[in-house]
Amino acid sequence: MGKEIVIIGGGPAGVTAAITARRYYPETNITLIRKEEKALIPCGIPYMFGTLDSAEKNLIPDQLLTGNNINLVIDEASSIDRDSGTVITSAGKNFIYDRLILALGSSPLIPSIPGVELNNVYAVRKDLEYLKDLSKKLDQSKDVVIIGGGFIGLEFADEFMKRGNLKVTIIELLPHCLLLACDEEICKRVENKLLERGVNINVGAKAGAISGKNQVEYVELESGDKIKADTVILGIGVKPNVNLALECHLAADGREGIQVDDFMRTSDENIFAIGDCAKKRCYLSGLPKGVWLASMGTTEARIAGANLFNVRRRSDCAIGIFSTCFGDLAVGSAGLTESAAREMGMDVVTGESVAPDKHPGSIPGAQELGIKLVFEKDTGLLIGGQVYGGVSVGEKINFIGALIQHKMRADEVCTFQMGTHPLLTASPIAYQLINAAQLAVMKLRKS
Amino acid sequence: MGKEIVIIGGGPAGVTAAITARRYYPETNITLIRKEEKALIPCGIPYMFGTLDSAEKNLIPDQLLTGNNINLVIDEASSIDRDSGTVITSAGKNFIYDRLILALGSSPLIPSIPGVELNNVYAVRKDLEYLKDLSKKLDQSKDVVIIGGGFIGLEFADEFMKRGNLKVTIIELLPHCLLLACDEEICKRVENKLLERGVNINVGAKAGAISGKNQVEYVELESGDKIKADTVILGIGVKPNVNLALECHLAADGREGIQVDDFMRTSDENIFAIGDCAKKRCYLSGLPKGVWLASMGTTEARIAGANLFNVRRRSDCAIGIFSTCFGDLAVGSAGLTESAAREMGMDVVTGESVAPDKHPGSIPGAQELGIKLVFEKDTGLLIGGQVYGGVSVGEKINFIGALIQHKMRADEVCTFQMGTHPLLTASPIAYQLINAAQLAVMKLRKS
Repeated sequence: MGKEIVIIGGGPAGVTAAITARRYYPETNITLIRKEEKALIPCGIPYMFGTLDSAEKNLIPDQLLTGNNINLVIDEASSIDRDSGTVITSAGKNFIYDRLILALGSSPLIPSIPGVELNNVYAVRKDLEYLKDLSKKLDQSKDVVIIGGGFIGLEFADEFMKRGNLKVTIIELLPHCLLLACDEEICKRVENKLLERGVNINVGAKAGAISGKNQVEYVELESGDKIKADTVILGIGVKPNVNLALECHLAADGREGIQVDDFMRTSDENIFAIGDCAKKRCYLSGLPKGVWLASMGTTEARIAGANLFNVRRRSDCAIGIFSTCFGDLAVGSAGLTESAAREMGMDVVTGESVAPDKHPGSIPGAQELGIKLVFEKDTGLLIGGQVYGGVSVGEKINFIGALIQHKMRADEVCTFQMGTHPLLTASPIAYQLINAAQLAVMKLRKS
Repeated sequence: MGKEIVIIGGGPAGVTAAITARRYYPETNITLIRKEEKALIPCGIPYMFGTLDSAEKNLIPDQLLTGNNINLVIDEASSIDRDSGTVITSAGKNFIYDRLILALGSSPLIPSIPGVELNNVYAVRKDLEYLKDLSKKLDQSKDVVIIGGGFIGLEFADEFMKRGNLKVTIIELLPHCLLLACDEEICKRVENKLLERGVNINVGAKAGAISGKNQVEYVELESGDKIKADTVILGIGVKPNVNLALECHLAADGREGIQVDDFMRTSDENIFAIGDCAKKRCYLSGLPKGVWLASMGTTEARIAGANLFNVRRRSDCAIGIFSTCFGDLAVGSAGLTESAAREMGMDVVTGESVAPDKHPGSIPGAQELGIKLVFEKDTGLLIGGQVYGGVSVGEKINFIGALIQHKMRADEVCTFQMGTHPLLTASPIAYQLINAAQLAVMKLRKS
């Protein structure tokens, strides 16, 4: 008889864990329990409202599961009996497990302000029907206010503008949008791009209430301003889904998530937790850190899936690697920003380098690509990086993330061998990653 | 009195060495001697014939030198007197040096076949006037034959097609174009793309002679075929420029280049050599390896420039990182191909992964991005990688190059943290680099 692996949750982490488990444990039976009829690609949600011509295009194909001999059950796990090793579902079914993986995801934070219960106030729920309903409402809308200027809020704003019928306004509490991920000068670039694309941005502004009769009419700021709105989007963040874990007495925290060790095991070593529901720690401070990203979840899934019956892989603490794109401007961030590092009490030096992303700069389609690297002053260790430019930013920031994860120093980055090509990269003389590191090395020498 | 640094050669390696030296030794006098009135960007040369609307756009700006307080001398170094530490030029000037950097570059290989001396046979010389002359000739040409199907030959072919008036044929000795850099399946992708773009390709074909009366009329293959040609391009490779070094009795070899230690010093420790003229060794075998690339040269320049008066940096052996692009197909290669590794006698396993470069795959503009990784079987060490896809290939292959340089194993690559974004990368489930490594890990476990 094969061992039984049960996975609760069908987002990217759950699916990747199932595939990884299938690879390492070919003789097992694997069951994935998912409450949604169809599984959305979470990071694709904003693009259902503009770029993609149908919401159904933003689905994780079930074939990834069925094609890997994974039993897909559409049902909701309602409780876990750890003594007998059983998951009980809403439909009253029991699933015995030898190993259980919790990939429970996260839920949108709802601010406790008057009026959030009004019609036409939407959170970013990973629910196809709910989001299709939002899309219909947007067709009849004129004034949309998005509360929260993080990645998701900005992506929604930019996509909404593509619909042509909407005035879109972002309300952000901090002095700049994206400030938790990028330093001010990069945030400003993004804000300028969004303004150029017609989005209104209110920074340093706190939504105090949403007002109207049944339907939303205004978002009222604490400053006293009232911003007209017939649809409101809440994009202020998420909280880990931990109820199922708490109910069966696993160590967990409603704000930080389910406690896991470096092997992704919970306080019950037969139960693993991955993705948004699992607690993450900052790779520099060791403190809890909210890196609620599908990409992080799949990394954890590749660790948990391999470790189920034999410990093989250890999780590094979370670096946090983000990227996004607005028109021709992509930005990415990995690790700590300069300002976050300084706030943490670190002495840092930075190196910045900007050059065309093709060479010579007169090659058609060339655009600026800029890199900022942040190094620890005493050791020269790379602790963060930010990139802006064209589409290659997505891979560039992952490159920088890998350098952080592998603890590279500034001088090592300076002597990287790289390839360059007129149509694909900066010139070898101006190659941004290396020059940014070299400039930091010069500062480190003087310090 | 400041120390005197003299650099011979104004290509990317010479310029980068000068800038690096200026950073590390601000009190020195730095003189760069360049024989060309204007310095071409070497990798941009093919693009002078199609993509760029003027040859003058493909120049390294002198401002990089003058703006860094580097004395630019347009003159030819004709000899070096090591006893007195003097460079003597054709114009009869003497330049005293405390440290000398040779960045002498390379020259095209000319095959010893009948007819290479005919009019309208061109090598790829880094000489603006010569190349402008070629461009004029192409305006009156109809049939161009390119001997050599490496990167440069293919790039010339693709650019020539953009002129609209030319039938272009490539003659390649090996069974496929690019076979020294890529495995057969990647080579075939490139060949198919070039065929689709109208280039004729003759592989496994050896040019035996070029025939005609003064002007070229045919390229004659050893098979007996005669291919009509009014212009012929020789793109079969380069040889390092070592004469100046040999004449002053530095250790050097006409085929492999000037001997250097890991600090980029020649057999005279006051004289450094970098770029195409300097001998390189394969990072796996330690044997001499011809990586004649501007990018490699600038890496060496950053080492030499920092080491002039204090040894600080060591050169790793050459990985060899290439990329190129034909229309919407970019390809890159780093380290050893599978076939080269097997020929060297290594046991290897490979992992391949293909997925759209945006997600979901229905995002407009998404195209396939494929990665092949090559690992040493006994150790799981990454020894090579190849990528094909869109423009992000240029940074992706540099990422892989860095992983090779820093001796990553397959399992480490599997647990990389990465960021993903619908408009910029594959989905986190399908992320190619990680999945290619994971598939290799499964093979390693079975082996």
